[in-house]
Amino acid sequence: MQMERIITLTTDFGLKDPYLGAMKGSILSVNAAARIVDITHMITPGDIREGALVLKDAFAYFPPGTIHVGVVDPGVGGARRPVLIETARFLFVGPDNGLFSPALEKEKVLRVIHLTDKRFFSKTVSPTFHGRDIFGPVAAHLSLGADPSGFGVSIEGIEGLAGPEPKREEGSVAGSVIYIDSYGNLITDIEEGDIESLRSSPIEVVIKGRSLDGIVETYSGVEEGALAALIGSSGRLEVAVNLGSAQKLLGAGVGERVAVRVKKR
Amino acid sequence: MQMERIITLTTDFGLKDPYLGAMKGSILSVNAAARIVDITHMITPGDIREGALVLKDAFAYFPPGTIHVGVVDPGVGGARRPVLIETARFLFVGPDNGLFSPALEKEKVLRVIHLTDKRFFSKTVSPTFHGRDIFGPVAAHLSLGADPSGFGVSIEGIEGLAGPEPKREEGSVAGSVIYIDSYGNLITDIEEGDIESLRSSPIEVVIKGRSLDGIVETYSGVEEGALAALIGSSGRLEVAVNLGSAQKLLGAGVGERVAVRVKKR
Amino acid sequence: MQMERIITLTTDFGLKDPYLGAMKGSILSVNAAARIVDITHMITPGDIREGALVLKDAFAYFPPGTIHVGVVDPGVGGARRPVLIETARFLFVGPDNGLFSPALEKEKVLRVIHLTDKRFFSKTVSPTFHGRDIFGPVAAHLSLGADPSGFGVSIEGIEGLAGPEPKREEGSVAGSVIYIDSYGNLITDIEEGDIESLRSSPIEVVIKGRSLDGIVETYSGVEEGALAALIGSSGRLEVAVNLGSAQKLLGAGVGERVAVRVKKR
Repeated sequence: MQMERIITLTTDFGLKDPYLGAMKGSILSVNAAARIVDITHMITPGDIREGALVLKDAFAYFPPGTIHVGVVDPGVGGARRPVLIETARFLFVGPDNGLFSPALEKEKVLRVIHLTDKRFFSKTVSPTFHGRDIFGPVAAHLSLGADPSGFGVSIEGIEGLAGPEPKREEGSVAGSVIYIDSYGNLITDIEEGDIESLRSSPIEVVIKGRSLDGIVETYSGVEEGALAALIGSSGRLEVAVNLGSAQKLLGAGVGERVAVRVKKR
Repeated sequence: MQMERIITLTTDFGLKDPYLGAMKGSILSVNAAARIVDITHMITPGDIREGALVLKDAFAYFPPGTIHVGVVDPGVGGARRPVLIETARFLFVGPDNGLFSPALEKEKVLRVIHLTDKRFFSKTVSPTFHGRDIFGPVAAHLSLGADPSGFGVSIEGIEGLAGPEPKREEGSVAGSVIYIDSYGNLITDIEEGDIESLRSSPIEVVIKGRSLDGIVETYSGVEEGALAALIGSSGRLEVAVNLGSAQKLLGAGVGERVAVRVKKR
Repeated sequence: MQMERIITLTTDFGLKDPYLGAMKGSILSVNAAARIVDITHMITPGDIREGALVLKDAFAYFPPGTIHVGVVDPGVGGARRPVLIETARFLFVGPDNGLFSPALEKEKVLRVIHLTDKRFFSKTVSPTFHGRDIFGPVAAHLSLGADPSGFGVSIEGIEGLAGPEPKREEGSVAGSVIYIDSYGNLITDIEEGDIESLRSSPIEVVIKGRSLDGIVETYSGVEEGALAALIGSSGRLEVAVNLGSAQKLLGAGVGERVAVRVKKR
């Protein structure tokens, strides 16, 4: 039986090269009824951290049973393992290089399978394109209802992504910009919960020597062209400009320090 | 019952950020069988006029019953109303900020509903992402066959988009470039009908001090590298270069003046 | 009966303009159940050779019966013929301008039909947009099971794409870069088979005065930042940089000469 299970794709393939088409063809050759949904193919080539972040902020909105394939895989064909991760709600397929670890923080992982059974791969596996020859076909077989345990051997744990975390102190939280979106909004690693306790007092958000007064609800909560700090749609503190680009206005990039602190009287 | 009604998306989300994936996930979580077709996600951030133009030139080619979702929404969470517009052929869902008004010029509007019934929204509605939390879910419920009248209260009229219009005089029409496509073709606001009466005489098209002799049928109707004026596939006068870019050759941008006039003897 | 036959699209439309949406709408208006898969829309405007290469490297991964539509069509409305090509496995629809000839090298062509029957076109055919008004609707009718022979008159042969080919000599093969992918990998026209006989001896790959020692299996087969020559996923020799861009490192473009030769002792 052919099932219409959803397969999402998050890659750094770009949208011009034949790679994406080849991978989709490869999926559809296993399950012609597979429903493929692009999350993105515009991850900076090889930037696992960026891919992990985009996947983390998108995957949970899909219906249970969705198969999330991630391919940001600069070590393709090398030591990193191709894996299938089953959680209470979803399946994840891709390289075990940290790409999935942020998404899994709030997921209940049931098992991790090292993909070793070549019956689920393309007949010929290119050492440089596992998206087309391993991850795509595996996802397609999963979409047909194949049991995850048949794809390989169960292993313990997956690779993490080490990195700086926001630092909470008395009356302040210090974090940094981790992503800049296409509107030029500066997305930080400071989450809503990190600053909840501060918000009973008047607070300020400090970035690049500028102090923003409090946190607003919407981009249009400040005047046109003005800077605003707000909790974005992913629950993270972001710095934006109403009808403009905070990236341009501040000349800020990924890594820029951001602090939230209770205002001094 | 799940229906395969088509939902199109026209947004300024770009193709890299998690926003598009989250919105698609949100739609599919309401109707896993929804068929989502991208019109574009590359509208210049916040450029309602540009979004309106692309939507206008694409929507009418879809089959009747299609649900067109538009999200170019710089005022998200502010005063502009989220709306559902039902016409004789289509449904439109998005912010009431002018985005749909050009598309509706030739449509028979049956009713406009202010989206107020939260049963059709996501459980939590981010003040900065109505695409994911209101417009997507509403479109998905519509795709399942929900009656438009149940989504909120009926209102009169929608926001328009004021702007310059072509000026018709005796023997001439003066307009301007309103869009530049990816080929570098300069698309104007002068429509085929605007210049029909002039075409019984020899005419010229004037832009940036250049005079183009008459209107040709195809890009290849002039020599390689030469400028051509023609009626493009959307019925508008455009200025193009055969196998080249009129934008580059002329150094012209949106707003550039263009005139069509009967040639002096 | 409506069938879910797959239609792929390879165009130079870009992703912002209304053209792609209009073409998809046009397909879905003929067959609302058509399954459209994008190969790419990012071909450099009018670059038939580039479009042909991307299509060639992607089409064969799709399931038999897939309808491949290609629209890189700078001569639209002019002398080139709109065609339908039936091979043992696939159908191809688009302009007869060389776009399909590389893909067909290894396909068994059964017949070529000059598309002349207007019953399968849109009611109005724009002279500048056959993608929307001819190729899209024709593909949609094919997806409904229409017999290829009904679309027009059978013709002999299609246009080719002349160009340089790799030159094999005693102990060496000389070729050139034909495509640069989004990772900055330099893809050459030298195929795996071209250099098979050389590989019994130690070989070197020469580009821009640099000599690369032998051919590695994977990008990570050399140190980070180092140049590598390898057989890419399409079976062609490529020059890459591990975790970097060969395009940037070498300052090389399409047309750059590349040689593979047996090392001198």
